[in-house]
Amino acid sequence: MTATLVLLRHGESTWNAENLFTGWVDVPLSEKGELEAKRGGELLRESGVLPDVLHTSLLRRAIATANIALDAADRHWIAVRRDWRLNERHYGALQGKNKKQTLETYGEEQYMLWRRSYDTPPPRIEPGSEFSQDADVRYAGLGAEMPLTECLKDVVVRLLPYWESAIVPDLRAGKVVAVAAHGNSLRALVKHLDGISDADIAGLNIPTGIPLRYDLDADLKPVNPGGTYLDPDAAEAAAAAVANQGR
Amino acid sequence: MTATLVLLRHGESTWNAENLFTGWVDVPLSEKGELEAKRGGELLRESGVLPDVLHTSLLRRAIATANIALDAADRHWIAVRRDWRLNERHYGALQGKNKKQTLETYGEEQYMLWRRSYDTPPPRIEPGSEFSQDADVRYAGLGAEMPLTECLKDVVVRLLPYWESAIVPDLRAGKVVAVAAHGNSLRALVKHLDGISDADIAGLNIPTGIPLRYDLDADLKPVNPGGTYLDPDAAEAAAAAVANQGR
Repeated sequence: MTATLVLLRHGESTWNAENLFTGWVDVPLSEKGELEAKRGGELLRESGVLPDVLHTSLLRRAIATANIALDAADRHWIAVRRDWRLNERHYGALQGKNKKQTLETYGEEQYMLWRRSYDTPPPRIEPGSEFSQDADVRYAGLGAEMPLTECLKDVVVRLLPYWESAIVPDLRAGKVVAVAAHGNSLRALVKHLDGISDADIAGLNIPTGIPLRYDLDADLKPVNPGGTYLDPDAAEAAAAAVANQGR
Repeated sequence: MTATLVLLRHGESTWNAENLFTGWVDVPLSEKGELEAKRGGELLRESGVLPDVLHTSLLRRAIATANIALDAADRHWIAVRRDWRLNERHYGALQGKNKKQTLETYGEEQYMLWRRSYDTPPPRIEPGSEFSQDADVRYAGLGAEMPLTECLKDVVVRLLPYWESAIVPDLRAGKVVAVAAHGNSLRALVKHLDGISDADIAGLNIPTGIPLRYDLDADLKPVNPGGTYLDPDAAEAAAAAVANQGR
């Protein structure tokens, strides 16, 4: 058996465009992001990678990206599941802060530690503050699992139960599975799939809007380690740009 | 217990605007239709009718209407189920034909029989013809249930199993349930809910884009027979316009 998994990072959001830390703040796509999503869907259609089922986070930038891309691929009608475990990393007290100003205020070392270290979360967000989600009804059932900040390791820990319980069964059923999510929830998933070390994951950036296909063997190990971008040239250029955010 | 059900007929499609019989042909919303959907979502938000789960057809005009409306209501993140049993009535050989020309060609009596009689379907569509869906992968599993034409009675027969098996359990679980569908699949559902006779259902038109709320008792009978439009004035004006289509 070979199973097909296709990962799609949402297109540019309004806060990506403004260079703000977003995390769980539920901002919309920018116009550029909508165009990226449409292009992503055209790539799916042109490559014949046609999802049977979609998994998304609970955030509208991933949901809208999937809606637009699947409509462009004529797959708007497929089954959908959503879960908070696919959400972006919670950015703690940095949510709503400007990346460049944060870099200038805290310096290169602290900035990169928060952005790319595996196990150092930013300071916790204050409950009830402007960019906190503690009163958001969609997370009312989370209880003690509701994060106030997360490092990438935390994302791996909360993502994997959903991978095992919801995504793997779809793959084992022979479905082409699409996951529309975020820079860090997809890095967490790719770390697991490709067996990337805690140190090496820091160097991995996933570009927005370009579908990343994994062909998985019977043990759900990638036949194509690192996956295959449906537009490799665009992916290479975009990954370099992500790495330079905040500069 | 009182359960809340909210019905949403899709906004204007490009073929509504061109006055063509659409049925199962998967045309997009017009710009006007997108605005109607957004207004529908604003009505949900303003009235505090906040769906916990969405059921849609497999057609993009209903799916897009739900996506736009739920985003406007800040409920884009809710659970979704889709099923062909919520599709519009299959319009048989009339799919793709102009309503006015059909009226002129066949005369008032035949035209109204096809449009509004309970049990007279239009002629069957020819498999493989331009506006047939027999090669559409989304219906590949239907087998002998795949319609070639339908009267409203046929829609009731194929809709009710989905109502019982998928929608009723959500209502019994106390969820606020949204159904985004079509003029005739919603007429079929309303006929069942309100116990409307085969003769009287001919006179019922459901306007586009205006959420219709039903409060259901423990037997799932409407506490408010006929339902409550979230914008009653707009609903009255729109229903009159639908009744005059093709004139």
